[in-house]
Amino acid sequence: MKKFINSTDTLLDESLLGFAKAHADIIQLNTQPNFIQRVNPTKPGKVALISGGGSGHEPLHTGFVGTGMLDAACPGQIFTSPTPDQMLAAAAAVENGGGVLFIVKNYAGDVMNFEMAAEMLDCSNASVLVCDDVSLPKTHSTGRRGVAGTLIVEKIVGAAAEQGADLACCKALGEKVNNATASMGVALSSCTVPALGKPTFDISDTDMEMGVGIHGERGHATLKLSSATDIVAHMAGMIDDDLKPAQGQTALLHVNGFGATPLMELHLIYDLAANYWEQRGIKIVRSLVGNYTTSIDMAGCSITLSLLDDELLALWDAPVHTAALRWGC
Amino acid sequence: MKKFINSTDTLLDESLLGFAKAHADIIQLNTQPNFIQRVNPTKPGKVALISGGGSGHEPLHTGFVGTGMLDAACPGQIFTSPTPDQMLAAAAAVENGGGVLFIVKNYAGDVMNFEMAAEMLDCSNASVLVCDDVSLPKTHSTGRRGVAGTLIVEKIVGAAAEQGADLACCKALGEKVNNATASMGVALSSCTVPALGKPTFDISDTDMEMGVGIHGERGHATLKLSSATDIVAHMAGMIDDDLKPAQGQTALLHVNGFGATPLMELHLIYDLAANYWEQRGIKIVRSLVGNYTTSIDMAGCSITLSLLDDELLALWDAPVHTAALRWGC
Repeated sequence: MKKFINSTDTLLDESLLGFAKAHADIIQLNTQPNFIQRVNPTKPGKVALISGGGSGHEPLHTGFVGTGMLDAACPGQIFTSPTPDQMLAAAAAVENGGGVLFIVKNYAGDVMNFEMAAEMLDCSNASVLVCDDVSLPKTHSTGRRGVAGTLIVEKIVGAAAEQGADLACCKALGEKVNNATASMGVALSSCTVPALGKPTFDISDTDMEMGVGIHGERGHATLKLSSATDIVAHMAGMIDDDLKPAQGQTALLHVNGFGATPLMELHLIYDLAANYWEQRGIKIVRSLVGNYTTSIDMAGCSITLSLLDDELLALWDAPVHTAALRWGC
Repeated sequence: MKKFINSTDTLLDESLLGFAKAHADIIQLNTQPNFIQRVNPTKPGKVALISGGGSGHEPLHTGFVGTGMLDAACPGQIFTSPTPDQMLAAAAAVENGGGVLFIVKNYAGDVMNFEMAAEMLDCSNASVLVCDDVSLPKTHSTGRRGVAGTLIVEKIVGAAAEQGADLACCKALGEKVNNATASMGVALSSCTVPALGKPTFDISDTDMEMGVGIHGERGHATLKLSSATDIVAHMAGMIDDDLKPAQGQTALLHVNGFGATPLMELHLIYDLAANYWEQRGIKIVRSLVGNYTTSIDMAGCSITLSLLDDELLALWDAPVHTAALRWGC
């Protein structure tokens, strides 16, 4: 394993120190327990949005804390859920009279720990569960995983909360975005979890793993590496079957890198995916291409389509000022 | 070689189509010959800033075209200089009465082709040569290479041009920034050039390559992989020896990923590098952490220190609206 670290035990804490130092104009780090919160105060009565999850997916979630998006993020150890004390401390720091909305990716550990925190909170609260990964059937035992669509939920609900939407509205909006969003990932290599020191799964030099998760979970099929056009047709086809967008529907297309795939390849994937839907009468009106929901050092990418009506588009376009997404501010 | 492509011959063109489609609000693609230019017109008399170089370093340079930064960028084939016809076509498209400033990374091919274009231009023009890589001695036969410091030159000169600085001022400013900027890179793996299909250099599982270029050039030393603290001390030490910043000097610290290094590790490197200079009385007042000047899929990073006085700081902070850098707009 080759990584820039001092030790696997201190990697997360040292990295958080660097993140906080590099973005001190936007966020601050709290330790014992770890959470990231905005430096700028919010309006009294604003719903406080808190997300979190295992580390190793940066910039998700810490990079999305700031005006117009999250109020706080709770980073767990790598690929490990944060503990309830992190969510409770974050809520105590950022709750401002409007209650707390947890945005949770659908993984057993995250769900359990956010639920425990919710039960212990002494303010009004609600949760949105994100489950946009269509590589798993809807009938999967623990439901579908939350992957790259999570940031779209965070951005849109974040804008609404900033504009004064109440807790029930924010929760309903988050569920609306989640239902309108579908993602699928493909990997050319495994990631290497630092504490493990070796790749999570083996893959041959001629294969790709179709339908991977963001924690080194294998996909629904190991396939021969094919052309980018064929790969996109497979992924977009499964997304399209799930969302069944109507002709003329407006959408956001997000191509996300898992960490080790060059931007040049992500833009090529974007072009092919945009062509796929444009040929089917879908209007791609917004785009996001880059490394946003990573899987440490995995070579691979995911495609996310999010069907946005005028309300959701306006909220997507609303000002945001975070380490990883910034416009209009 | 595992990459998301249809063929190595079409990779660049397909990628440029996707880039242009994803960022159609900011830039447009011109083909035959290839260049990227802004969609928004500039003020008459504004100096037109044009850069370019081999592809494979994205978002450099195409991701830096837009308000407050470049007027156009000319992408060559991967790791191959653009040809003079690209620069001439770009200049014809964006020259607006203020002349043309070429910002050129110091590589023989780039220097030659930009010089040929300059000789053929029928408008006033000048060039800034960027050579910030301190891993090579100042006496190196072809001079030092231009690496991650290039975007700092492009950002600061871009702001000045937007504010109405004339051609001579822009050239002088670019040279001032270049002289105040030093970078050094380290690699844990080689990159794989698609047309070659295999890593450019071999490196053992326990070694790192210190002082690499951004085209798979080996470094000045192959060393045993050490702690992040030791790696940063080595790199920052060479940068510090070169720039010799005074106590109390204000600076921008840029930690750049080469493509396959997780953001978590880049932030850890940032923390260590910031500590290094803060302990020496340097004030790190601005930061930039992420993949900005990449080397395809190389695992590695570079550290850049840029000494910024009040003038340069104000220009760094000025509004910018490009695909890869955006603030204040």
